[in-house]
Amino acid sequence: MRLDEITAGPLLSQIEYPSDLKKLDKMQLQQVCDELRRFIVDTVSVNGGHFGASLGVVELTVALHYVMNTPYDQLVWDVGHQAYGHKILTGRRKVFHTNRRKDGISGFPKRDESEYDTFGVGHSSTSISAALGMAIASKLKGETDRQHIAVIGDGAMTAGLPFEAMNHAGVSGANVLIILNDNNMSIDPNVGALKEYLTDITTSHTYNKLRDDLWKLMGKLPYADLQRDMASKIKDGLKGAITKSSNLFEALGLRYFGPIDGHNVTKLVDTLKDLRDIQGPKILHIKTVKGKGYKLAEEDQTLWHAPGLFDKVTGKINKVTYDTPQAPKYQDVFGHSIIELAKANPKIMGITPAMPSGCSLKYMMAEMPDRALDVGIAEQHAVTVSAGLATQGMRVFCNIYSSFMQRAYDMVIHDVAIQNLPVVFCLDRAGMVGDDGGTHQGAYDLAYMRCIPNMIVSAPMNEQELRNLMYTAQLEETKNPFVIRYPRGQGVMPEWKTPFEKIIIGKGEKIKDGNDIAILTIGHPGNFAIKACKELEADGINAAHYNMRFVKPLDEAMLHEIGKKFSSVITVEDGCIQGGFGSAVLEFFNEHNYKPQVKILGIPDYVIEHASQAQQYAECGYDAASIVKAAKEMMVKKDNELSLV
Amino acid sequence: MRLDEITAGPLLSQIEYPSDLKKLDKMQLQQVCDELRRFIVDTVSVNGGHFGASLGVVELTVALHYVMNTPYDQLVWDVGHQAYGHKILTGRRKVFHTNRRKDGISGFPKRDESEYDTFGVGHSSTSISAALGMAIASKLKGETDRQHIAVIGDGAMTAGLPFEAMNHAGVSGANVLIILNDNNMSIDPNVGALKEYLTDITTSHTYNKLRDDLWKLMGKLPYADLQRDMASKIKDGLKGAITKSSNLFEALGLRYFGPIDGHNVTKLVDTLKDLRDIQGPKILHIKTVKGKGYKLAEEDQTLWHAPGLFDKVTGKINKVTYDTPQAPKYQDVFGHSIIELAKANPKIMGITPAMPSGCSLKYMMAEMPDRALDVGIAEQHAVTVSAGLATQGMRVFCNIYSSFMQRAYDMVIHDVAIQNLPVVFCLDRAGMVGDDGGTHQGAYDLAYMRCIPNMIVSAPMNEQELRNLMYTAQLEETKNPFVIRYPRGQGVMPEWKTPFEKIIIGKGEKIKDGNDIAILTIGHPGNFAIKACKELEADGINAAHYNMRFVKPLDEAMLHEIGKKFSSVITVEDGCIQGGFGSAVLEFFNEHNYKPQVKILGIPDYVIEHASQAQQYAECGYDAASIVKAAKEMMVKKDNELSLV
Repeated sequence: MRLDEITAGPLLSQIEYPSDLKKLDKMQLQQVCDELRRFIVDTVSVNGGHFGASLGVVELTVALHYVMNTPYDQLVWDVGHQAYGHKILTGRRKVFHTNRRKDGISGFPKRDESEYDTFGVGHSSTSISAALGMAIASKLKGETDRQHIAVIGDGAMTAGLPFEAMNHAGVSGANVLIILNDNNMSIDPNVGALKEYLTDITTSHTYNKLRDDLWKLMGKLPYADLQRDMASKIKDGLKGAITKSSNLFEALGLRYFGPIDGHNVTKLVDTLKDLRDIQGPKILHIKTVKGKGYKLAEEDQTLWHAPGLFDKVTGKINKVTYDTPQAPKYQDVFGHSIIELAKANPKIMGITPAMPSGCSLKYMMAEMPDRALDVGIAEQHAVTVSAGLATQGMRVFCNIYSSFMQRAYDMVIHDVAIQNLPVVFCLDRAGMVGDDGGTHQGAYDLAYMRCIPNMIVSAPMNEQELRNLMYTAQLEETKNPFVIRYPRGQGVMPEWKTPFEKIIIGKGEKIKDGNDIAILTIGHPGNFAIKACKELEADGINAAHYNMRFVKPLDEAMLHEIGKKFSSVITVEDGCIQGGFGSAVLEFFNEHNYKPQVKILGIPDYVIEHASQAQQYAECGYDAASIVKAAKEMMVKKDNELSLV
Repeated sequence: MRLDEITAGPLLSQIEYPSDLKKLDKMQLQQVCDELRRFIVDTVSVNGGHFGASLGVVELTVALHYVMNTPYDQLVWDVGHQAYGHKILTGRRKVFHTNRRKDGISGFPKRDESEYDTFGVGHSSTSISAALGMAIASKLKGETDRQHIAVIGDGAMTAGLPFEAMNHAGVSGANVLIILNDNNMSIDPNVGALKEYLTDITTSHTYNKLRDDLWKLMGKLPYADLQRDMASKIKDGLKGAITKSSNLFEALGLRYFGPIDGHNVTKLVDTLKDLRDIQGPKILHIKTVKGKGYKLAEEDQTLWHAPGLFDKVTGKINKVTYDTPQAPKYQDVFGHSIIELAKANPKIMGITPAMPSGCSLKYMMAEMPDRALDVGIAEQHAVTVSAGLATQGMRVFCNIYSSFMQRAYDMVIHDVAIQNLPVVFCLDRAGMVGDDGGTHQGAYDLAYMRCIPNMIVSAPMNEQELRNLMYTAQLEETKNPFVIRYPRGQGVMPEWKTPFEKIIIGKGEKIKDGNDIAILTIGHPGNFAIKACKELEADGINAAHYNMRFVKPLDEAMLHEIGKKFSSVITVEDGCIQGGFGSAVLEFFNEHNYKPQVKILGIPDYVIEHASQAQQYAECGYDAASIVKAAKEMMVKKDNELSLV
């Protein structure tokens, strides 16, 4: 099947916007769901993208747009990789095949893409806060008929932010409906006490049914009345009659409904209609199956979270095969190397906040389950629990995606760096991440980490260097917090399993000598510079290339050498230009009174949207071609200046 | 009373370490509590410091060190401003009068101060994660007899991090005891649904008593046994017999005990002895009164959180009086100016995460309760709910201390900046904070904010500029997120209530012309530069002074003027040198090929400990004297270079 062969079914092809959906009879909605599900399967199989999450909420999506008055009623999709159905029903069916492509639609809801996308998402767990903000604004404006709905998974619920938001929502009196989409999954199986608890309450049918009925009865009263003293006494009386203590959500002041079957679209429609009439903060708990309707995806939900391209009939996932050995993903180098290190050093532990497959800690979790932990979507806790472990002499590799580490910035400063605890932070997905786009770019870490006292901040240029930095970071003699950041995807060394060697902290290496211009790189883009140097050489420009390895501490001896020798310097980083590696080099040159021309190549000061990584590198201007171009421009400028003298 | 007149009572004076305390009979402990309380009152009244929090946990502190085998058993005090009693009982009674003084003991637990201080604190809500990390390490090491105790207030519980930690703790099987010190207070009265819930469960005495007894009975079984199938069935059966659904903490897998009176020291001792024998994650809920034992502090708990110096007999708080009008605190300029602005612009709202008194939003909360909200200790939510409000056209002033904003860094990037929503972030306590010390320094914000796309980053030099920046930030024409950061404490303008005037975004002002050297300042240290310029002038050096106002966008026209005219430039900021304002200036000069000598004055790359603000400015090297010194050194250097030519 090709993209241009995909067609929508007879009902779906009539639906451009929710107004078209609303014309249908309730009994036709299951067919809409079936057609929508097929359209998603067809498109993702040949275009790629997230898969299981959107299949799991097809019925919910149809029911929400059928019942609610979107976009006046405001719908916030948590994380957003389950919003494909939403996009297709809200004016984007005909461009859905451009999903996650450069200049195509985003894989996540985005405010500048559609008025139906009320809040930009990508990182998890923001939806309740965002919807509550909208609801408070409506309350101030007197828009009492307006609905504000956050759809959030049970995985996203383990983060701290939804708890903070519920604590506020419960006393806000604002009209917010939280839909807890409970499928037992993050990208990997969900973990933690909350998961077990949700299973508990799911099985309390009689109790739940009785309570729902009572709540609905009372809910028909205006919310303000309920808050009055007498009504409040009735409420407490009823509540007391059912249970002495309330459930977790009721404890936080939310009226709890459910759980109900999230794949029964007519039941969802009826329930949402009831809830629409109930003012105030409330939560509807629905049970769904991630990947619903595509058997293989139901069976292996992690694999089918975002499977890549596949044959939708056979379910065979396309894997490109090669005749020669390929370089591994940096992720797998991390995942296998930590096991090697942990076997030799009993103090080593691995921690991941809900990304065991993504960061490849899953291998260690399988082999050493006591020493490798998935703590759920909980970046803050991942860092502070690592700090606690470090006080006991443990050597923790805390692996967090660069953009998710933004969640735990205070914990890095306050719990790790100020106490100078030797936690190792492996920042995965540093630099450009490709089709996930703006929200996931690991753009800021070099800037936000290098300003912190006591930190060591490093980036490997290849697999061997990643292994050696990991080795160095866990040595007893290494006393500081240690950042190792590396990009998503493949490295450059098919023969990557090299012996561990210590790297002297703050020491770079000269990759290539040269006289005309110095190219200073940090991390993976060093490989782009190798290519660029060859091209420059072919054009008669003899560039030196220094792989700096460390942004902090800088290799001062190397920088003195460069400062003394070169009048033209290019710095290359897959991080933001403002305040990053190039900026650190400028600070050094300034302090030591060197005055070369410096051209900083890196991520420019705007949000880089979804595209392939290669497209993004080119857009940012730090791929090999960009380095060549910058070097030539500098040489021309230098020649001009010299000829003027 | 003078510091040297303070004496410990007969029992307290015998206690250097917990081993001395353990020698006493249980019936003597109340006397120890009384003496400890008096010692704290005496010392704080003449030395200053936090007050109410430590008085509230005197009995708990004594009971913990009496029952537990500290420091082998590990005690983590959340936030830490309640740890004075702990410090006094663990080897620091005789230096307690140096509390928060330069080179004295810290106001917070600190690992390098004592082995009894197991984890450095200052920011709230980290204790459960930290103690859990310690407990997991003990579990791995087979130290089954070791206790790990987090003491956390109900205010700190509203943050997301403890929820993340409990979700992990509940399934960890690790031996962690959470003591919920429930006093209804943060610094200000606690807010949110959790607070109301805690009141609810506190009143369910019979139920709680029954359940405690059952838990304790079962708790004597080894934890491993309890997890076995049969024991688990017994457990569920018992649980079901008491209640169909569990309470909030039980929902998270913690065994819940309490609530008990936190001022009954013998009851605490008995309960802690019981709990010591119960393996696994558990929570003890105690009720205390902040300020307990000092009547005035019990009655106005916010005022007496940290009252400054006072007469302990009359309770009169020492306020220095002046004959002339004094400059106001920046905090009050914010607090009153937002009301003026909000009266004219109905879209304005104010949000604070639990600092209404500290940041002075309390005035607006009193006058416009619908439009000024305290969301609890919940910085992440404060930012994302502000983003939600901004999508509806509201103009939110979200006021967060600079160091606490580190908690919400991802929300600033992901929810506000990427979507370019015009939220105003007022970063209070930016720069050096004085005696709170390292954890509270607002050192990194200029660096961590200026690397984010779409952000406007500004700092006012005085009260008038703060008002005008606030005015500018809320104008309809201002479309970007807007940071306004200012320090703790007094400004410089007694006549501060100036008419609002728009400031052109990205425009600085020349304070003083000059020819010899340019001094570029951002924010309040501009006042130090004014003083320095006068001193330099007296010494024949004619310095120009530019108040840049914005770190982002920079005033490029002004920087071109400076780059063309000066060969010596000093930048001054109350932020970290690495990646901050000076670094931004270097980036500009480099890009535009200006080559002045630049000396960057700011916060050096290590943690600045507690001292007075003036002492800290001097230590960092950006007070007036330091600017003078730097300017003279640069002039000498320039002269030397010229004479060499």
